[in-house]
Amino acid sequence: MVTRGSYELFYWPSIQGRGEFVRLALEAAGAPYVDVARLPAEQGGGVKVLTALLAETSGGGPFFAPPLLRQGTVTLSQTGAILQYLGPRLGLCPEDEASRVKANHLQLTVSDFLVEVHDAHHPIASSLYYDDQKPEASRRADLFVTNRIPKYLGYFERVLESNAAAGGRHAVGAALSYVDLSFFQLMSGVGYAFPRALARMTGKLPLLVALHESVAAVPAVAAYLASPRRIPFNEHGIFRHYPELDP
Amino acid sequence: MVTRGSYELFYWPSIQGRGEFVRLALEAAGAPYVDVARLPAEQGGGVKVLTALLAETSGGGPFFAPPLLRQGTVTLSQTGAILQYLGPRLGLCPEDEASRVKANHLQLTVSDFLVEVHDAHHPIASSLYYDDQKPEASRRADLFVTNRIPKYLGYFERVLESNAAAGGRHAVGAALSYVDLSFFQLMSGVGYAFPRALARMTGKLPLLVALHESVAAVPAVAAYLASPRRIPFNEHGIFRHYPELDP
Repeated sequence: MVTRGSYELFYWPSIQGRGEFVRLALEAAGAPYVDVARLPAEQGGGVKVLTALLAETSGGGPFFAPPLLRQGTVTLSQTGAILQYLGPRLGLCPEDEASRVKANHLQLTVSDFLVEVHDAHHPIASSLYYDDQKPEASRRADLFVTNRIPKYLGYFERVLESNAAAGGRHAVGAALSYVDLSFFQLMSGVGYAFPRALARMTGKLPLLVALHESVAAVPAVAAYLASPRRIPFNEHGIFRHYPELDP
Repeated sequence: MVTRGSYELFYWPSIQGRGEFVRLALEAAGAPYVDVARLPAEQGGGVKVLTALLAETSGGGPFFAPPLLRQGTVTLSQTGAILQYLGPRLGLCPEDEASRVKANHLQLTVSDFLVEVHDAHHPIASSLYYDDQKPEASRRADLFVTNRIPKYLGYFERVLESNAAAGGRHAVGAALSYVDLSFFQLMSGVGYAFPRALARMTGKLPLLVALHESVAAVPAVAAYLASPRRIPFNEHGIFRHYPELDP
């Protein structure tokens, strides 16, 4: 874990979740940061530090939910807002307004997709266990796999196709951006949670498949993915592998 | 309907939906705009113009879903991104970065709440009718009304409380912002869809109740709400009044 730095990330310490999109940006850029809730309490870490910051009103809060990012006196919440803030600062988004606007709407659409991924296994309520909503999850996941995954991933494929300046290799501009990292994470997550469904559609998603491989090969990303800082996918996060939901 | 102007809004013509948050900002600011899909086809309007623009790649697209806002060569999608862009331009957000960041995370939390409002009546799929998912909707709405509405509205109430500079009368800064307009719309919508639930909790939401009244009394907003440009709430939008979901 990086122990000192100008950025402090506050997110649940045991899942990738939405925080992973921020972790990937910080890691890909080699930015110094602290993943605060993963530090021991003796070092100023732990979940209580996170939940206390949610109620903080001095830096733009109170906040509804993590992830939170703090830099100096500025605290941000909402994954899309955090990445929009970090993008130009980390060299992960072109600085012109048209590119920033485009990256932002793409990232917010990634966020929309994530809600649907989560609700495929929790269609009734986050406050209930999966076991308490299995029939509903089965019904929702069936339509999610059939209609929604192809709709979202097909859209992101078209985004890559349409970015001719980058030869289809990047979502925004001609170089790696936080949107590419987010597309990588979506492909990783769908591949973990719905491997059979993804295998059936990869033939139609050549640019996303290639992007997933090229991002994983970026040295800083590869180093991160191989490190203990990368929390493995598990059945407490957004992407969960329940085989019965991926027939 | 305003027929000429520098802003063009593209949204479903028969519902308030997410487009309403953009309409309210344009109307409150007295900005000239065209609500394109509501114009007749002979005047360049209609839904087909909207759906064609979704596929457009020259101005930042393709786009996943409306609302879309076009100004000159820039096209934006995603409600939060559109409002972030419009805010300072319409005088509906302070220009300093801290205020813009705060307004943005609040608006993205409004967007998260809207997804949950929608899914209270459509927990299985948007592609199915409500009648085809009534048992699931009943189960989800029960928990939504009990847990989620109080959690979100309680949070927005705390946001107002914590903005001491505005005496609790505004969400960001000391004047009307697009976040205030969005809080107004949420209170209107919850009051339409879940009147009994809202009545039970208004005693704990004095600042939101007062904000709802004060925004409705802003002359430009009052004129808009009384005009045919304000589409009435109905059972095709996000906020739907199904009495069985509001026992």
